[in-house]
Amino acid sequence: MNNVPFKGVIAYPVTPFDSNENIDIPLFKKQVERLVKTGVHGIAPLGSTGVMPYLNDTEKEAITEATMQQVAGRVPTLVGVSNLTTERTLYHAKFAEKSGATAVMIIPMSYWKLTDDEIVKHYDEVASKISIPIMAYNNPATGGVDMSPALLKRLLEIPNVTMIKESSGDIQRMHYLRNELGDEVAFFNGSNPLALAAFSAGARGWCTAAPNLIPELNISLYDAIQENDLVKARAIFYKQIDLLKFIVAKGLPRSIKAGLDLLGVGGGRFKSPIQPLNGNEIAELDGILSAIENEVYQS
Amino acid sequence: MNNVPFKGVIAYPVTPFDSNENIDIPLFKKQVERLVKTGVHGIAPLGSTGVMPYLNDTEKEAITEATMQQVAGRVPTLVGVSNLTTERTLYHAKFAEKSGATAVMIIPMSYWKLTDDEIVKHYDEVASKISIPIMAYNNPATGGVDMSPALLKRLLEIPNVTMIKESSGDIQRMHYLRNELGDEVAFFNGSNPLALAAFSAGARGWCTAAPNLIPELNISLYDAIQENDLVKARAIFYKQIDLLKFIVAKGLPRSIKAGLDLLGVGGGRFKSPIQPLNGNEIAELDGILSAIENEVYQS
Amino acid sequence: MNNVPFKGVIAYPVTPFDSNENIDIPLFKKQVERLVKTGVHGIAPLGSTGVMPYLNDTEKEAITEATMQQVAGRVPTLVGVSNLTTERTLYHAKFAEKSGATAVMIIPMSYWKLTDDEIVKHYDEVASKISIPIMAYNNPATGGVDMSPALLKRLLEIPNVTMIKESSGDIQRMHYLRNELGDEVAFFNGSNPLALAAFSAGARGWCTAAPNLIPELNISLYDAIQENDLVKARAIFYKQIDLLKFIVAKGLPRSIKAGLDLLGVGGGRFKSPIQPLNGNEIAELDGILSAIENEVYQS
Amino acid sequence: MNNVPFKGVIAYPVTPFDSNENIDIPLFKKQVERLVKTGVHGIAPLGSTGVMPYLNDTEKEAITEATMQQVAGRVPTLVGVSNLTTERTLYHAKFAEKSGATAVMIIPMSYWKLTDDEIVKHYDEVASKISIPIMAYNNPATGGVDMSPALLKRLLEIPNVTMIKESSGDIQRMHYLRNELGDEVAFFNGSNPLALAAFSAGARGWCTAAPNLIPELNISLYDAIQENDLVKARAIFYKQIDLLKFIVAKGLPRSIKAGLDLLGVGGGRFKSPIQPLNGNEIAELDGILSAIENEVYQS
Repeated sequence: MNNVPFKGVIAYPVTPFDSNENIDIPLFKKQVERLVKTGVHGIAPLGSTGVMPYLNDTEKEAITEATMQQVAGRVPTLVGVSNLTTERTLYHAKFAEKSGATAVMIIPMSYWKLTDDEIVKHYDEVASKISIPIMAYNNPATGGVDMSPALLKRLLEIPNVTMIKESSGDIQRMHYLRNELGDEVAFFNGSNPLALAAFSAGARGWCTAAPNLIPELNISLYDAIQENDLVKARAIFYKQIDLLKFIVAKGLPRSIKAGLDLLGVGGGRFKSPIQPLNGNEIAELDGILSAIENEVYQS
Repeated sequence: MNNVPFKGVIAYPVTPFDSNENIDIPLFKKQVERLVKTGVHGIAPLGSTGVMPYLNDTEKEAITEATMQQVAGRVPTLVGVSNLTTERTLYHAKFAEKSGATAVMIIPMSYWKLTDDEIVKHYDEVASKISIPIMAYNNPATGGVDMSPALLKRLLEIPNVTMIKESSGDIQRMHYLRNELGDEVAFFNGSNPLALAAFSAGARGWCTAAPNLIPELNISLYDAIQENDLVKARAIFYKQIDLLKFIVAKGLPRSIKAGLDLLGVGGGRFKSPIQPLNGNEIAELDGILSAIENEVYQS
Repeated sequence: MNNVPFKGVIAYPVTPFDSNENIDIPLFKKQVERLVKTGVHGIAPLGSTGVMPYLNDTEKEAITEATMQQVAGRVPTLVGVSNLTTERTLYHAKFAEKSGATAVMIIPMSYWKLTDDEIVKHYDEVASKISIPIMAYNNPATGGVDMSPALLKRLLEIPNVTMIKESSGDIQRMHYLRNELGDEVAFFNGSNPLALAAFSAGARGWCTAAPNLIPELNISLYDAIQENDLVKARAIFYKQIDLLKFIVAKGLPRSIKAGLDLLGVGGGRFKSPIQPLNGNEIAELDGILSAIENEVYQS
Repeated sequence: MNNVPFKGVIAYPVTPFDSNENIDIPLFKKQVERLVKTGVHGIAPLGSTGVMPYLNDTEKEAITEATMQQVAGRVPTLVGVSNLTTERTLYHAKFAEKSGATAVMIIPMSYWKLTDDEIVKHYDEVASKISIPIMAYNNPATGGVDMSPALLKRLLEIPNVTMIKESSGDIQRMHYLRNELGDEVAFFNGSNPLALAAFSAGARGWCTAAPNLIPELNISLYDAIQENDLVKARAIFYKQIDLLKFIVAKGLPRSIKAGLDLLGVGGGRFKSPIQPLNGNEIAELDGILSAIENEVYQS
């Protein structure tokens, strides 16, 4: 089988800013350290949660390097390097590789809808010039282009495109990949409310920002699946579903940062135009977190 | 808990016609007998598969009575009684009850989109005048109206509306029902390609026409779930997914009848405007059935 | 050019019921008489507005005959004869022809999505057995099947399918028909808020229930288009747009009947499950009608 | 009325690249000169057609300055300054103002869906720091966020947001703006196949890349509307609809550059991942342009 350095729960840190909208590296490192210590199986900076597209080149490089320093090889790292242009995507992929990233994640960002051939060429161009594996990431809600399962299958023919992250929220896409490519295909789920269904369908891992707030529940869901205990997995899933739905509905950066503030870790500020949750939303999140705390962590 | 007489695999027979587009009761009884003998846990005539909306009142009554005679109490029966008007829905619900049906299934058919209040009133009007339980059926692709999970929850407050059949294909709807109503809620999955995900999410049963063609695979999926063996359930699911996708893509009446012809049972003819599958489609179905036969039944 | 007996504003009466949900023929005749006297260019009973799919065969026949008696040849008539089955569609098409209808309107109603070939066969079967022209009606929001412009073009090859009514609300469909078939193609607009755009695109007529409430505005829009006075047509259109949007948003039978009540004509009751507008909705409609009255009819 | 410096046909140039994917300023100036000479009523560099989001800051500034030099005040200019971050949007807005742009165009680009409040704050932040007017641009298909008519109305309350460009392709959005804000509201159509419907609805102008290929037809459509001659406008519109549909279906940068090559002007190369049309597509475009040439320019 190909080079697939990930399984289990891959955690996505936020990118914290200070009051001048500059990145706050010390807080970022603190958040990353906390994630690693929870026992997650990978760290993925510069994802959607990390508002990668809103950062300039310098900021992206600083976050990449800070991640490598802080993780220090304890778990594999997956660095987001997507860009509208192929040239900038390649630039950041090379930077990540040189910095020591285990793999890079690429979503075909779009302003103009890309043809399938353009997308294949885009991945192929980057893949041919780096040596670490690539996770192809489908998320039409953010990237603006929807890669069909057939296109994803085609991308997996590029030697170092070895992993798929599916965030469309459509479980049938995962069925297709598994059915077409066999039980060794490395597809990861990126849609939080689909965590149980995706693991049931055979997903190798779960790419999620939720471990910033409820790492034990996220990891124990994966463990129950590994133990082939569906009844247990289902019970654990329903304990966290309200939180999973909330963070998706309100936007991951906004809701995770609010949650980190509520937990006393500190989420950091935002880069405009993205703004914090409002008071009612924060109160709703507080209620969800408290209910989980009461049910799970004190029982 | 309420009166929920179903669990497991509920099988939907087709309605066969003769060359004059009249219903073929002897063939229908033969098909029903064959379904009962496979070991399915319920029989549901006059469903979407049974092209209920295309039948006149006399034909519906004949199918209802033939089902009762043939099933003869060996498994519970669920009779479709939906109609555009409340008056006709009530008429057929009463007929089903009098004929001995275990329960009735009602989808809010629409030409004009119904408001939530109109739908609640429609169910309430029928429910208050019969004594057997009602399964509320959501299938926007056929019925033309999409009942939200919140509306389905509201319908379950009507005393003898005790079951939900969800066929929207959106696993999140099932999460909602289970999360809002607890693990005793009786929701059934009506979307064939969602069978594994729905059972994982806690569905009590699977309403499906597939047992006309591959009953062993359908029932053994349910059995594996009952044994809490997800690995086994997943393997069984992927053996049948091509067939499940095909029958949905091509339309259940067309594809099940073609499959029954291929299996030598005889599917019967159609009522216009619905026509049989074309030659290429039948060949594709034959290939899928043969692949299953080779892998499953001869291994 | 083919046999196209319509142009201008074709008015759709409602079907009034009494308190026992039986049709109220005297009130229906009164409403039809009022419509004819406004100067509309055609009368179309048993349309969506007339809740045709909710009526039984006897009721449909009574409405058809009442229309013929009351219109008495003063304007052409267009009778809805659609049904889920081809057999019933043909039955009602023959009845309409025998009763003296100028033409029949057929929408391919669906429970199971029909293939293009099934739809063509359905129309062809009916068309070959009647002599009056057929208007093929596309309205995916009610009928549940969306006929592409290419399919509509194909239907126009059937000898007495001579007219298209497009209610999808997509102006590009009309552009396609006109562009493909030339300026003699007889397409009619059935989407009220698209009235100005459709006439601008070359629609031959407007199929609408609005003349039950604001006939002068509807007819004067058509007149301005005939006079090639776009500035005037635009001004007239914006005077009625609030009403056009309201009746579509709330459902034509509900809103037109409420409007007829407000105007003192009497709209009649409903057949369940369809219910009247609620008090707030009726007040909103009253406000819209009063604003039009003040601006238009008293200036 | 507010400061609205545009009406009529506003032409969008492409951004040509050389074989190294660097911008080709001499070719850009030649294309701009040609557009100005056709008689269009405004020039809009760095639009979607100009692949603005794919350019780096230096490239955007060079295109802005080249436009000002070449147009030299002969027609008003509208410069695209949109960016994911508010900071970069403001930076480019200030640069455009300083360079002499008549106005700037801003689409709320998104990776994370923005809330209405975030969008208002984004516009307000930029608007308060420049003095030239802003055109708020809605195009969910490219920008990824869909601004409702109600939000657009709210944006028009910001003092120098004086114009709306609607590219959603939904004529009802324009009806809403006109109906809510009166006949002085300055909305522009950005959906090419909607050109006739939008002018009929009262659009003040048409933002389009089509004048790169068929300027006479675009301008004469506007002239016919100004003359209140709908019959003539309709005839002119149907002469160009195939071209308008093609350039939208295939993507404006790809199709306009191919067309400029076919016309002998030269369209320039692309920046990856965007690639040229393939041979079949170019042949189809050639056929459309030839048909227009034969019908329009030689008659």
